[in-house]
Amino acid sequence: MGKRIVVALGGNALGNNLTEQMAAVKVTSEAIADLIESGCDVIISHGNGPQVGMIQLAMDELHESDSQCYPRIPLSVCVAMSQSYIGYDLQNALREELAGRGIQKPVCTVITQVKVDPEDPSFAKPSKPIGRFMTEAEARALVAEKGAAVIEDAGRGWRRVVASPQPVEIVEIETIRALQSAGQVVIACGGGGIPVTQQGLHLAGAKAVIDKDFCSELLAEQVNADLLLILTAVEKVAIRFGKPDQKDLEAVTTEELQQYAAAGEFAPGSMLPKVEAALRFTRSKPGRKAIITRLEKAIDAVNGRTGTVIGA
Amino acid sequence: MGKRIVVALGGNALGNNLTEQMAAVKVTSEAIADLIESGCDVIISHGNGPQVGMIQLAMDELHESDSQCYPRIPLSVCVAMSQSYIGYDLQNALREELAGRGIQKPVCTVITQVKVDPEDPSFAKPSKPIGRFMTEAEARALVAEKGAAVIEDAGRGWRRVVASPQPVEIVEIETIRALQSAGQVVIACGGGGIPVTQQGLHLAGAKAVIDKDFCSELLAEQVNADLLLILTAVEKVAIRFGKPDQKDLEAVTTEELQQYAAAGEFAPGSMLPKVEAALRFTRSKPGRKAIITRLEKAIDAVNGRTGTVIGA
Repeated sequence: MGKRIVVALGGNALGNNLTEQMAAVKVTSEAIADLIESGCDVIISHGNGPQVGMIQLAMDELHESDSQCYPRIPLSVCVAMSQSYIGYDLQNALREELAGRGIQKPVCTVITQVKVDPEDPSFAKPSKPIGRFMTEAEARALVAEKGAAVIEDAGRGWRRVVASPQPVEIVEIETIRALQSAGQVVIACGGGGIPVTQQGLHLAGAKAVIDKDFCSELLAEQVNADLLLILTAVEKVAIRFGKPDQKDLEAVTTEELQQYAAAGEFAPGSMLPKVEAALRFTRSKPGRKAIITRLEKAIDAVNGRTGTVIGA
Repeated sequence: MGKRIVVALGGNALGNNLTEQMAAVKVTSEAIADLIESGCDVIISHGNGPQVGMIQLAMDELHESDSQCYPRIPLSVCVAMSQSYIGYDLQNALREELAGRGIQKPVCTVITQVKVDPEDPSFAKPSKPIGRFMTEAEARALVAEKGAAVIEDAGRGWRRVVASPQPVEIVEIETIRALQSAGQVVIACGGGGIPVTQQGLHLAGAKAVIDKDFCSELLAEQVNADLLLILTAVEKVAIRFGKPDQKDLEAVTTEELQQYAAAGEFAPGSMLPKVEAALRFTRSKPGRKAIITRLEKAIDAVNGRTGTVIGA
């Protein structure tokens, strides 16, 4: 034990609205407190798809109601707001869970910007779903009225999509490291970080949402983590997913998982970015491992009892 | 020099909407960078009146448009969102200003909760203005439709008001101290901090906005600052304000300023909380000073060339 772990939380760890979030962060905090109690040094990152979509919708509607008083709020600022909307509840729930176990460890949220390349090809091809699911009619209206890009998402309905460039550099990395060195539990890179592009000394907000798994991976490299723990809704990564001969993966080498990914075994926008993030991390330095498992199984997976362990 | 300073930024340092904010934070960053460049150790706090009002309005309207999908967002969560809405722009502008001067100092924003007493008398008597100015007709409609409390604010129009309890404890103080020890520039206690009340181990969000001057004062005590620098729209505190024999105050003792305050020289909700915060700080420990001055005069005031210096 005593591992340094970056925990990447998926949508199920946070819920889709504030009522769900306030319930979800309790379960999430128990899972994370288990890791801390067992001696792990934990840094937390998380997604923000439904949250940033909700915030952008609210800010767009306010702007449209009175455009003089309320200028349009760029997506980057909405990502910033989602970091405290989520971080406040999460840090509070985790602080409470730790206190209940007699662990007096500060928990904090760092507002984090992440540089992206303005030439990233994703800017020409929006693909990251944000906000709630819509009917096809609602989606078509959004395209017609606001010129938004939309996609049909995994059979669950339609969603707005935005560009999702690769994370290049975490601007506030020294802040995260200082807090980690001080023994604090840090929530950082929320929603994949606030996407910015470097323009001279200026960092300009980008109209994008960075994939939280890729950003968590970069974070794990930058804080020299031993383990990237990607928590999601399934206990193990599967090949032949949903077919009669579906096979759950337990311990896999980087090479094996790479072959499955190349063979198209994992769904883009769903399991594929998690697998790719895991592969990047295990390749980044010898001895680094990644685990993909269900939120509630975090401590069991870290203790080698379940989950898909990559780079074992 | 080499002083430890808590800088409390007023509304003029941030503007009333995002367009104004993006311009204002540049001027603000120059003033703060002057202090850092001269060797001071700076911690920044700020108000959020217009910003939290804007966020609450947007979230209320979203809730009213679809209450099932979007539960009502409590004021405490809106305060949290205002911390990153402002902190992101401010940390970014200050990072850029410092980089332009060749100072590579990390700047960060800490999402900060502040405990208040649930029995604080202010809960029965809302007095803190938030949001934009309204006409009397708009204000009366808000009272009728939403049961909001409103006041006529300093001859400038009507505003919504909320409770403004006294800050009791800064929950994330250890995070602020760790970053300060690491030589970083910290933005904390934004908007007076997210107001919470202790209920067992749980911290419940409170329907309130803490006065940013009182919260900055508590912060200054807790980080053992030498100086509380309250930046506002006037260069010096005045007695007989607006009268033919108006007199600007330069160096005053705690006792002198206390006498002026007791004589009703300062406007409640405007100069009075700044004066009271300054008095609390200079009384908290021998040798502590407070300065109230105009944003653009910060470095001159710290160097003894202007401003109202309390506890001199």
